Amino acid sequence: MGATESGPSVAVVGVTGAVGQEFLQVLSDRDFPYRSIKMLASKRSAGSRMPFQGKDYVVEELTAESFDGVDVALFSAGGSVSKQFAPLAMERGSIVVDNSSAFRMDESVPLVIPEVNPEAMSHIRLRSGKGAIVANPNCSTIICLMATTPLHRLAKVLRMVVSTYQAASGAGAAAMQELELQTREVLDGKQPTCNIFKQQYAFNLFSHNAPVLSNGYNEEEMKLVKETRKIWNDKDVKVTATCIRVPVMRAHAESINLQFEKPLDEDTAREVLKKAAGVIVIDDRTSNIFPTPLEVSNKDDVAVGRIRQDVSQDGNHGLDVFVCGDQIRKGAALNAVQIAEKLL
Amino acid sequence: MGATESGPSVAVVGVTGAVGQEFLQVLSDRDFPYRSIKMLASKRSAGSRMPFQGKDYVVEELTAESFDGVDVALFSAGGSVSKQFAPLAMERGSIVVDNSSAFRMDESVPLVIPEVNPEAMSHIRLRSGKGAIVANPNCSTIICLMATTPLHRLAKVLRMVVSTYQAASGAGAAAMQELELQTREVLDGKQPTCNIFKQQYAFNLFSHNAPVLSNGYNEEEMKLVKETRKIWNDKDVKVTATCIRVPVMRAHAESINLQFEKPLDEDTAREVLKKAAGVIVIDDRTSNIFPTPLEVSNKDDVAVGRIRQDVSQDGNHGLDVFVCGDQIRKGAALNAVQIAEKLL
Repeated sequence: MGATESGPSVAVVGVTGAVGQEFLQVLSDRDFPYRSIKMLASKRSAGSRMPFQGKDYVVEELTAESFDGVDVALFSAGGSVSKQFAPLAMERGSIVVDNSSAFRMDESVPLVIPEVNPEAMSHIRLRSGKGAIVANPNCSTIICLMATTPLHRLAKVLRMVVSTYQAASGAGAAAMQELELQTREVLDGKQPTCNIFKQQYAFNLFSHNAPVLSNGYNEEEMKLVKETRKIWNDKDVKVTATCIRVPVMRAHAESINLQFEKPLDEDTAREVLKKAAGVIVIDDRTSNIFPTPLEVSNKDDVAVGRIRQDVSQDGNHGLDVFVCGDQIRKGAALNAVQIAEKLL
Repeated sequence: MGATESGPSVAVVGVTGAVGQEFLQVLSDRDFPYRSIKMLASKRSAGSRMPFQGKDYVVEELTAESFDGVDVALFSAGGSVSKQFAPLAMERGSIVVDNSSAFRMDESVPLVIPEVNPEAMSHIRLRSGKGAIVANPNCSTIICLMATTPLHRLAKVLRMVVSTYQAASGAGAAAMQELELQTREVLDGKQPTCNIFKQQYAFNLFSHNAPVLSNGYNEEEMKLVKETRKIWNDKDVKVTATCIRVPVMRAHAESINLQFEKPLDEDTAREVLKKAAGVIVIDDRTSNIFPTPLEVSNKDDVAVGRIRQDVSQDGNHGLDVFVCGDQIRKGAALNAVQIAEKLL
């Protein structure tokens, strides 16, 4: 596969960013079929060379006309770029897979994790003349629901308490570089450089840098609350989240406490998760080997472990799990490419 | 104060360790009155010099006879040393303040956080001829209950879901050194040295290294479950915990979800916490400034922030909070010295 006349014409918007680069890696790894591919970015990056599958491409400046003849546009250039250009691409008949939060809660836009709710985008057709936007959920939501949906299908989640351990990559490539720079500085006894984050990140952690809303939750946390309801099509599911940035490079971890409508024992939960697509179970109590961010970095599967009956709930109605997933891959680029694959 | 004829004679057991050193720092910082002080450690460290308040002491080998004439013995040399020597010290009339887990769940031993349950040790008298052991709770428990007890007194906690972000210091000074060494190695593109921990710790995190029990919880987590019940003298309080080691040097963080019997609004909670002894509130939503481990390192107070009404619970019956506390200080040495102060 790869370049083929029968494939769609693809555009990658924000190709020079961390997720944009991962789009290319995932398209290549998965042998995604394409007739042509356009590398789009801001004016600043236009003209630079971008190698892909043995060919050299020139990065083009993103304009409305960029989408003429484009079947699938993968967007990861921030919310404001999506807000401006995704409707323009849609008008030209493109199917936009948008990694920003711009359209996630828009009722007319499906919010999709292919393993969880592919049916939400079943009405969207490639080259139908009718463009569309499909939203990629937030990374924390994707990683959380990859692990919890198989259990939700079995016993119905009533309430979920999530605490995250989020990597630098969620704030972009520059944040990863700042974490590395700061760590070197701190080890050398110097003052850490704080450009991306306003405080020391090396050997420290802090509440997620997303703006805090009037209810005291930050936007990252409310994404978990609201996106879960939309993806599960369950307006009653109760979710609370505390999102914390930890000095890890590119994979998120989440500690998840679950309350179920029906009893669910840990052995059944473990077996169901072992069979779930895109999930790997790492749960070795004897050797104390459980998921870690490092272990899942650059990997497709979300790892689940520490699966145990919650001692604070009666009658097997609760479980605790610990989940790790690559923030850039399944948390962003892979999920978007999988959405595009569903269109083929 | 400091050295004074009216003070008790003190022994510090495990004086060369991270907590032992902090015992000395805290005794000095708080001007703890003492008639004499003995520096005790294993045979290996015996004979080395230990400066304290302008005097040079010689570290002595720990034996049963070490406790002759000792009024207060501060122990932090691991559970097996405590099991062997605390009863011997007690026989000689010493009051042992033990930082290990050896006696915490012993019904005859009070488990005390001075701000929380000082009454548990009210029957213990210095120089009464009758020795005793007072146990210092686990660091995660102390930090958690410093923040939650003022709320518990007001609205009664029914259930608590805790996820921890624990520092290297909890595994001792060598673990802190290993984190630093590993970080240098990883930045230099080398394989990280894994002696204390069996996996990469730098730029990574993992489930707490305590042994995992048959119910799937590790010992660290079950300490939070069981010690909370004992300290609050409430066998019905429901607690679940997930304990995670993060690459931070010496202060723990905890994300705590609370379910109350009575409604409790976040403004009342914030006001009560502002007035609580040993607690500082850092909760600036506009500037996104909340507690961090770095901020509380080497400080006495436990910092609480992210105080907000839990959106997953109805009728103000739930709160989420984020807490940071110095693991070596309030989590260990300071709490133990405060216990000793209660005896004066």
